[in-house]
Amino acid sequence: MQQRSEETRSKIMESAIRLFSARGYNKASVDEICAEAGISKGAFYHHFKSKQALFLALLDGWLKTIDDAIEASKDKPIPETFKQMTQAFPYLFESAGENLPIFLEFWLQASRDEKVWQASIAPYRRYHKQFSDLIRQGVEEGSFVEVNPELTARMIISTAMGLLLQSLLDPKGAKWEKVARESTSMLVDGLLRK
Amino acid sequence: MQQRSEETRSKIMESAIRLFSARGYNKASVDEICAEAGISKGAFYHHFKSKQALFLALLDGWLKTIDDAIEASKDKPIPETFKQMTQAFPYLFESAGENLPIFLEFWLQASRDEKVWQASIAPYRRYHKQFSDLIRQGVEEGSFVEVNPELTARMIISTAMGLLLQSLLDPKGAKWEKVARESTSMLVDGLLRK
Repeated sequence: MQQRSEETRSKIMESAIRLFSARGYNKASVDEICAEAGISKGAFYHHFKSKQALFLALLDGWLKTIDDAIEASKDKPIPETFKQMTQAFPYLFESAGENLPIFLEFWLQASRDEKVWQASIAPYRRYHKQFSDLIRQGVEEGSFVEVNPELTARMIISTAMGLLLQSLLDPKGAKWEKVARESTSMLVDGLLRK
Repeated sequence: MQQRSEETRSKIMESAIRLFSARGYNKASVDEICAEAGISKGAFYHHFKSKQALFLALLDGWLKTIDDAIEASKDKPIPETFKQMTQAFPYLFESAGENLPIFLEFWLQASRDEKVWQASIAPYRRYHKQFSDLIRQGVEEGSFVEVNPELTARMIISTAMGLLLQSLLDPKGAKWEKVARESTSMLVDGLLRK
Protein backbone atom coordinates (compact mmCIF):
# COMPACT_ATOMS: atom_id res chain seq x y z
CA MET A 1 0.00 0.00 0.00
CA GLN A 2 2.77 2.37 0.96
CA GLN A 3 4.32 2.01 -2.48
CA ARG A 4 1.03 2.50 -4.27
CA SER A 5 0.33 5.60 -2.20
CA GLU A 6 3.67 7.09 -3.18
CA GLU A 7 3.02 6.30 -6.81
CA THR A 8 -0.29 8.17 -6.61
CA ARG A 9 1.41 11.14 -5.00
CA SER A 10 4.05 11.23 -7.77
CA LYS A 11 1.35 10.93 -10.42
CA ILE A 12 -0.52 13.91 -8.95
CA MET A 13 2.64 16.00 -8.81
CA GLU A 14 3.65 15.17 -12.39
CA SER A 15 0.17 15.96 -13.69
CA ALA A 16 0.13 19.23 -11.75
CA ILE A 17 3.49 20.33 -13.21
CA ARG A 18 2.17 19.64 -16.72
CA LEU A 19 -1.11 21.50 -16.14
CA PHE A 20 0.38 24.47 -14.23
CA SER A 21 3.01 24.82 -16.97
CA ALA A 22 0.49 24.68 -19.79
CA ARG A 23 -2.50 26.55 -18.33
CA GLY A 24 -1.23 28.37 -15.29
CA TYR A 25 -1.78 27.85 -11.58
CA ASN A 26 -5.03 29.81 -11.39
CA LYS A 27 -6.70 28.16 -14.38
CA ALA A 28 -5.72 24.56 -13.64
CA SER A 29 -8.36 23.13 -11.26
CA VAL A 30 -8.12 20.21 -8.85
CA ASP A 31 -10.70 18.41 -11.06
CA GLU A 32 -8.45 18.73 -14.07
CA ILE A 33 -5.41 17.56 -12.13
CA CYS A 34 -7.35 14.48 -10.99
CA ALA A 35 -8.49 13.76 -14.56
CA GLU A 36 -4.96 14.16 -15.90
CA ALA A 37 -3.56 11.88 -13.18
CA GLY A 38 -6.42 9.39 -13.55
CA ILE A 39 -7.29 9.43 -9.84
CA SER A 40 -10.31 10.29 -7.70
CA LYS A 41 -10.80 13.54 -5.84
CA GLY A 42 -10.72 11.56 -2.60
CA ALA A 43 -7.25 10.31 -3.45
CA PHE A 44 -6.15 13.86 -4.24
CA TYR A 45 -7.27 15.23 -0.87
CA HIS A 46 -5.74 12.27 0.90
CA HIS A 47 -2.35 13.53 -0.33
CA PHE A 48 -2.82 17.31 -0.47
CA LYS A 49 -5.18 19.42 1.52
CA SER A 50 -5.47 22.01 -1.26
CA LYS A 51 -4.15 23.12 -4.65
CA GLN A 52 -1.90 25.54 -2.79
CA ALA A 53 -0.48 22.72 -0.65
CA LEU A 54 0.31 20.78 -3.84
CA PHE A 55 1.95 23.85 -5.35
CA LEU A 56 4.09 24.30 -2.24
CA ALA A 57 5.10 20.63 -2.39
CA LEU A 58 6.29 21.15 -5.99
CA LEU A 59 8.28 24.19 -4.91
CA ASP A 60 9.82 22.22 -2.02
CA GLY A 61 10.78 19.43 -4.39
CA TRP A 62 12.62 21.84 -6.63
CA LEU A 63 14.40 23.52 -3.75
CA LYS A 64 15.43 20.14 -2.39
CA THR A 65 17.35 19.39 -5.60
CA ILE A 66 19.43 22.51 -5.00
CA ASP A 67 19.85 21.84 -1.27
CA ASP A 68 21.02 18.29 -1.99
CA ALA A 69 23.62 19.58 -4.45
CA ILE A 70 24.87 22.05 -1.84
CA GLU A 71 24.90 19.42 0.90
CA ALA A 72 26.82 16.94 -1.31
CA SER A 73 29.59 19.45 -1.91
CA LYS A 74 30.23 20.34 1.74
CA ASP A 75 33.66 19.92 3.34
CA LYS A 76 35.43 20.02 -0.01
CA PRO A 77 37.95 22.69 -1.00
CA ILE A 78 36.14 25.99 -1.60
CA PRO A 79 36.63 26.21 -5.39
CA GLU A 80 35.34 22.61 -5.62
CA THR A 81 32.27 23.39 -3.48
CA PHE A 82 31.62 26.46 -5.56
CA LYS A 83 31.84 24.51 -8.82
CA GLN A 84 29.44 21.86 -7.58
CA MET A 85 26.97 24.44 -6.31
CA THR A 86 26.93 26.25 -9.62
CA GLN A 87 26.75 23.03 -11.63
CA ALA A 88 23.39 22.17 -10.14
CA PHE A 89 22.14 24.93 -12.40
CA PRO A 90 22.70 23.62 -15.96
CA TYR A 91 21.27 20.33 -14.67
CA LEU A 92 17.98 22.13 -14.09
CA PHE A 93 17.63 22.73 -17.82
CA GLU A 94 18.21 19.09 -18.66
CA SER A 95 15.79 17.76 -16.07
CA ALA A 96 12.97 20.31 -16.27
CA GLY A 97 12.70 20.38 -20.06
CA GLU A 98 9.33 21.55 -21.31
CA ASN A 99 8.00 21.89 -17.79
CA LEU A 100 10.18 24.94 -17.19
CA PRO A 101 7.20 27.37 -17.31
CA ILE A 102 6.35 26.14 -13.82
CA PHE A 103 9.06 28.55 -12.62
CA LEU A 104 7.15 31.52 -13.98
CA GLU A 105 4.20 30.27 -11.95
CA PHE A 106 6.31 29.98 -8.80
CA TRP A 107 7.51 33.54 -9.26
CA LEU A 108 4.13 34.97 -10.11
CA GLN A 109 2.36 33.24 -7.23
CA ALA A 110 5.14 34.36 -4.88
CA SER A 111 4.30 37.95 -5.79
CA ARG A 112 0.59 37.37 -5.02
CA ASP A 113 0.36 34.77 -2.26
CA GLU A 114 1.91 35.30 1.17
CA LYS A 115 2.45 31.59 1.88
CA VAL A 116 4.11 30.91 -1.46
CA TRP A 117 6.17 34.04 -0.95
CA GLN A 118 7.42 32.83 2.43
CA ALA A 119 8.24 29.41 1.01
CA SER A 120 10.06 30.72 -2.04
CA ILE A 121 11.83 33.83 -0.78
CA ALA A 122 13.42 32.40 2.34
CA PRO A 123 15.48 29.95 0.21
CA TYR A 124 16.67 32.71 -2.17
CA ARG A 125 17.88 34.71 0.80
CA ARG A 126 19.59 31.58 2.14
CA TYR A 127 21.30 30.88 -1.20
CA HIS A 128 22.50 34.44 -1.33
CA LYS A 129 24.00 34.08 2.13
CA GLN A 130 25.58 30.70 1.30
CA PHE A 131 27.16 32.02 -1.90
CA SER A 132 28.33 35.19 -0.15
CA ASP A 133 29.94 33.21 2.69
CA LEU A 134 31.62 30.82 0.30
CA ILE A 135 33.00 33.59 -1.89
CA ARG A 136 34.19 35.50 1.18
CA GLN A 137 36.07 32.41 2.41
CA GLY A 138 37.54 31.84 -1.05
CA VAL A 139 38.76 35.43 -1.20
CA GLU A 140 40.21 35.20 2.33
CA GLU A 141 42.09 31.97 1.71
CA GLY A 142 43.35 33.39 -1.60
CA SER A 143 41.83 30.89 -4.00
CA PHE A 144 39.43 33.51 -5.43
CA VAL A 145 40.28 36.93 -6.84
CA GLU A 146 39.35 40.02 -4.78
CA VAL A 147 35.66 40.67 -5.32
CA ASN A 148 32.76 42.02 -3.28
CA PRO A 149 31.24 38.73 -1.99
CA GLU A 150 27.71 40.09 -1.46
CA LEU A 151 27.51 41.66 -4.89
CA THR A 152 29.13 38.71 -6.66
CA ALA A 153 26.70 36.30 -5.01
CA ARG A 154 23.81 38.51 -6.08
CA MET A 155 25.06 38.55 -9.66
CA ILE A 156 25.44 34.77 -9.73
CA ILE A 157 21.85 34.30 -8.59
CA SER A 158 20.70 36.99 -11.02
CA THR A 159 22.45 35.32 -13.93
CA ALA A 160 20.83 32.01 -13.05
CA MET A 161 17.34 33.49 -12.69
CA GLY A 162 17.75 35.64 -15.80
CA LEU A 163 18.87 32.69 -17.92
CA LEU A 164 15.97 30.63 -16.65
CA LEU A 165 13.59 33.45 -17.47
CA GLN A 166 14.99 33.97 -20.97
CA SER A 167 14.82 30.25 -21.69
CA LEU A 168 11.16 30.25 -20.63
CA LEU A 169 10.30 33.18 -22.82
CA ASP A 170 12.31 32.18 -25.84
CA PRO A 171 12.93 28.42 -25.75
CA LYS A 172 14.26 28.41 -29.31
CA GLY A 173 16.32 31.61 -28.97
CA ALA A 174 19.47 29.77 -27.89
CA LYS A 175 20.75 26.39 -26.77
CA TRP A 176 19.94 27.20 -23.16
CA GLU A 177 21.49 24.19 -21.53
CA LYS A 178 24.76 24.96 -23.34
CA VAL A 179 24.52 28.67 -22.45
CA ALA A 180 23.92 27.69 -18.80
CA ARG A 181 26.96 25.42 -18.80
CA GLU A 182 29.21 27.99 -20.45
CA SER A 183 28.01 30.84 -18.20
CA THR A 184 28.72 28.72 -15.15
CA SER A 185 32.26 28.00 -16.37
CA MET A 186 32.80 31.67 -17.15
CA LEU A 187 31.72 32.67 -13.62
CA VAL A 188 33.91 30.03 -11.98
CA ASP A 189 36.91 30.90 -14.18
CA GLY A 190 36.43 34.59 -13.48
CA LEU A 191 36.57 33.96 -9.73
CA LEU A 192 39.46 31.51 -9.58
CA ARG A 193 42.86 33.06 -9.02
CA LYS A 194 45.05 32.11 -11.99
CA MET B 1 -8.70 68.76 -27.68
CA GLN B 2 -5.50 67.06 -28.78
CA GLN B 3 -3.94 67.79 -25.39
CA ARG B 4 -6.94 66.57 -23.46
CA SER B 5 -6.99 63.38 -25.53
CA GLU B 6 -3.35 62.72 -24.70
CA GLU B 7 -4.02 63.35 -21.02
CA THR B 8 -6.81 60.76 -21.11
CA ARG B 9 -4.53 58.27 -22.82
CA SER B 10 -1.83 58.79 -20.16
CA LYS B 11 -4.39 58.46 -17.39
CA ILE B 12 -5.60 55.13 -18.80
CA MET B 13 -2.05 53.85 -19.09
CA GLU B 14 -1.09 54.88 -15.55
CA SER B 15 -4.23 53.30 -14.10
CA ALA B 16 -3.59 50.12 -16.07
CA ILE B 17 -0.01 49.84 -14.76
CA ARG B 18 -1.30 50.20 -11.19
CA LEU B 19 -4.06 47.62 -11.65
CA PHE B 20 -2.02 45.10 -13.63
CA SER B 21 0.73 45.36 -11.02
CA ALA B 22 -1.63 44.92 -8.08
CA ARG B 23 -4.17 42.41 -9.44
CA GLY B 24 -2.62 40.91 -12.55
CA TYR B 25 -3.44 41.30 -16.22
CA ASN B 26 -6.15 38.63 -16.29
CA LYS B 27 -8.04 39.84 -13.23
CA ALA B 28 -7.95 43.56 -13.97
CA SER B 29 -10.93 44.33 -16.23
CA VAL B 30 -11.50 47.22 -18.63
CA ASP B 31 -14.33 48.37 -16.30
CA GLU B 32 -11.93 48.60 -13.38
CA ILE B 33 -9.34 50.45 -15.43
CA CYS B 34 -12.01 52.98 -16.47
CA ALA B 35 -13.13 53.43 -12.85
CA GLU B 36 -9.53 53.86 -11.66
CA ALA B 37 -8.83 56.39 -14.42
CA GLY B 38 -12.18 58.15 -13.91
CA ILE B 39 -13.17 57.89 -17.58
CA SER B 40 -16.00 56.35 -19.60
CA LYS B 41 -15.78 53.07 -21.46
CA GLY B 42 -16.34 54.99 -24.69
CA ALA B 43 -13.21 57.04 -23.97
CA PHE B 44 -11.28 53.86 -23.27
CA TYR B 45 -12.20 52.26 -26.58
CA HIS B 46 -11.49 55.49 -28.41
CA HIS B 47 -7.84 55.06 -27.34
CA PHE B 48 -7.40 51.27 -27.21
CA LYS B 49 -9.29 48.65 -29.14
CA SER B 50 -8.83 46.08 -26.34
CA LYS B 51 -7.16 45.33 -23.02
CA GLN B 52 -4.50 43.50 -24.98
CA ALA B 53 -3.85 46.56 -27.17
CA LEU B 54 -3.40 48.64 -24.00
CA PHE B 55 -1.03 46.05 -22.58
CA LEU B 56 1.02 46.09 -25.79
CA ALA B 57 1.15 49.90 -25.65
CA LEU B 58 2.60 49.68 -22.12
CA LEU B 59 5.17 47.18 -23.29
CA ASP B 60 6.10 49.44 -26.23
CA GLY B 61 6.48 52.39 -23.89
CA TRP B 62 8.93 50.50 -21.73
CA LEU B 63 10.93 49.24 -24.72
CA LYS B 64 11.08 52.76 -26.12
CA THR B 65 12.92 53.96 -22.99
CA ILE B 66 15.63 51.40 -23.68
CA ASP B 67 15.73 52.11 -27.43
CA ASP B 68 16.08 55.84 -26.75
CA ALA B 69 19.01 55.20 -24.40
CA ILE B 70 20.69 53.07 -27.06
CA GLU B 71 19.99 55.61 -29.80
CA ALA B 72 21.39 58.48 -27.68
CA SER B 73 24.69 56.67 -27.20
CA LYS B 74 25.38 55.93 -30.88
CA ASP B 75 28.55 57.12 -32.63
CA LYS B 76 30.43 57.47 -29.36
CA PRO B 77 33.54 55.44 -28.47
CA ILE B 78 32.58 51.82 -27.80
CA PRO B 79 33.25 51.75 -24.03
CA GLU B 80 31.18 54.95 -23.74
CA THR B 81 28.28 53.47 -25.75
CA PHE B 82 28.46 50.35 -23.64
CA LYS B 83 28.35 52.31 -20.39
CA GLN B 84 25.33 54.32 -21.52
CA MET B 85 23.49 51.24 -22.70
CA THR B 86 24.01 49.48 -19.39
CA GLN B 87 23.16 52.58 -17.37
CA ALA B 88 19.62 52.62 -18.71
CA PHE B 89 19.15 49.67 -16.41
CA PRO B 90 19.52 51.10 -12.87
CA TYR B 91 17.33 53.96 -14.11
CA LEU B 92 14.53 51.45 -14.56
CA PHE B 93 14.48 50.80 -10.81
CA GLU B 94 14.24 54.49 -9.99
CA SER B 95 11.47 55.19 -12.48
CA ALA B 96 9.33 52.07 -12.17
CA GLY B 97 9.26 51.98 -8.37
CA GLU B 98 6.33 50.06 -6.95
CA ASN B 99 4.94 49.40 -10.41
CA LEU B 100 7.73 46.94 -11.11
CA PRO B 101 5.39 43.88 -10.88
CA ILE B 102 4.13 44.86 -14.33
CA PHE B 103 7.27 43.14 -15.66
CA LEU B 104 6.18 39.82 -14.24
CA GLU B 105 2.92 40.34 -16.12
CA PHE B 106 4.77 41.10 -19.36
CA TRP B 107 6.78 37.92 -18.98
CA LEU B 108 3.86 35.75 -17.99
CA GLN B 109 1.62 37.01 -20.79
CA ALA B 110 4.49 36.56 -23.25
CA SER B 111 4.56 32.88 -22.35
CA ARG B 112 0.79 32.56 -22.95
CA ASP B 113 -0.16 35.03 -25.69
CA GLU B 114 1.32 34.86 -29.18
CA LYS B 115 0.94 38.60 -29.88
CA VAL B 116 2.55 39.66 -26.61
CA TRP B 117 5.26 37.10 -27.22
CA GLN B 118 6.04 38.55 -30.66
CA ALA B 119 6.12 42.06 -29.25
CA SER B 120 8.31 41.23 -26.28
CA ILE B 121 10.70 38.58 -27.61
CA ALA B 122 11.79 40.31 -30.80
CA PRO B 123 13.32 43.20 -28.75
CA TYR B 124 15.21 40.81 -26.43
CA ARG B 125 16.74 39.13 -29.45
CA ARG B 126 17.62 42.56 -30.86
CA TYR B 127 19.25 43.65 -27.58
CA HIS B 128 21.25 40.47 -27.52
CA LYS B 129 22.48 41.14 -31.04
CA GLN B 130 23.27 44.81 -30.25
CA PHE B 131 25.26 43.90 -27.13
CA SER B 132 27.06 41.07 -28.94
CA ASP B 133 28.05 43.35 -31.84
CA LEU B 134 29.22 46.08 -29.51
CA ILE B 135 31.30 43.72 -27.39
CA ARG B 136 32.78 42.12 -30.51
CA GLN B 137 33.83 45.55 -31.80
CA GLY B 138 35.27 46.46 -28.40
CA VAL B 139 37.30 43.25 -28.32
CA GLU B 140 38.50 43.79 -31.90
CA GLU B 141 39.62 47.38 -31.33
CA GLY B 142 41.31 46.31 -28.09
CA SER B 143 39.32 48.41 -25.63
CA PHE B 144 37.66 45.30 -24.11
CA VAL B 145 39.36 42.18 -22.76
CA GLU B 146 39.08 38.96 -24.79
CA VAL B 147 35.66 37.46 -24.10
CA ASN B 148 33.07 35.47 -26.03
CA PRO B 149 30.77 38.31 -27.24
CA GLU B 150 27.63 36.18 -27.63
CA LEU B 151 27.95 34.61 -24.20
CA THR B 152 28.91 37.86 -22.47
CA ALA B 153 25.92 39.64 -24.02
CA ARG B 154 23.68 36.82 -22.84
CA MET B 155 25.04 37.11 -19.31
CA ILE B 156 24.54 40.87 -19.23
CA ILE B 157 20.89 40.48 -20.23
CA SER B 158 20.50 37.61 -17.76
CA THR B 159 21.92 39.65 -14.92
CA ALA B 160 19.54 42.50 -15.71
CA MET B 161 16.48 40.24 -15.94
CA GLY B 162 17.50 38.27 -12.86
CA LEU B 163 17.98 41.41 -10.79
CA LEU B 164 14.64 42.74 -11.92
CA LEU B 165 13.01 39.44 -11.01
CA GLN B 166 14.64 39.29 -7.57
CA SER B 167 13.63 42.87 -6.83
CA LEU B 168 10.04 42.01 -7.74
CA LEU B 169 9.96 38.97 -5.52
CA ASP B 170 11.81 40.43 -2.59
CA PRO B 171 11.55 44.23 -2.69
CA LYS B 172 12.99 44.55 0.82
CA GLY B 173 15.71 41.92 0.37
CA ALA B 174 18.30 44.44 -0.83
CA LYS B 175 18.70 48.01 -1.99
CA TRP B 176 17.97 47.02 -5.56
CA GLU B 177 18.70 50.29 -7.24
CA LYS B 178 22.14 50.32 -5.58
CA VAL B 179 22.74 46.64 -6.47
CA ALA B 180 21.78 47.43 -10.08
CA ARG B 181 24.19 50.36 -10.20
CA GLU B 182 27.06 48.37 -8.65
CA SER B 183 26.46 45.32 -10.85
CA THR B 184 26.53 47.53 -13.92
CA SER B 185 29.86 49.05 -12.85
CA MET B 186 31.27 45.60 -12.10
CA LEU B 187 30.32 44.37 -15.59
CA VAL B 188 31.75 47.44 -17.30
CA ASP B 189 34.96 47.30 -15.23
CA GLY B 190 35.31 43.60 -15.95
CA LEU B 191 35.15 44.22 -19.69
CA LEU B 192 37.39 47.29 -19.96
CA ARG B 193 41.03 46.56 -20.68
CA LYS B 194 43.07 48.07 -17.85
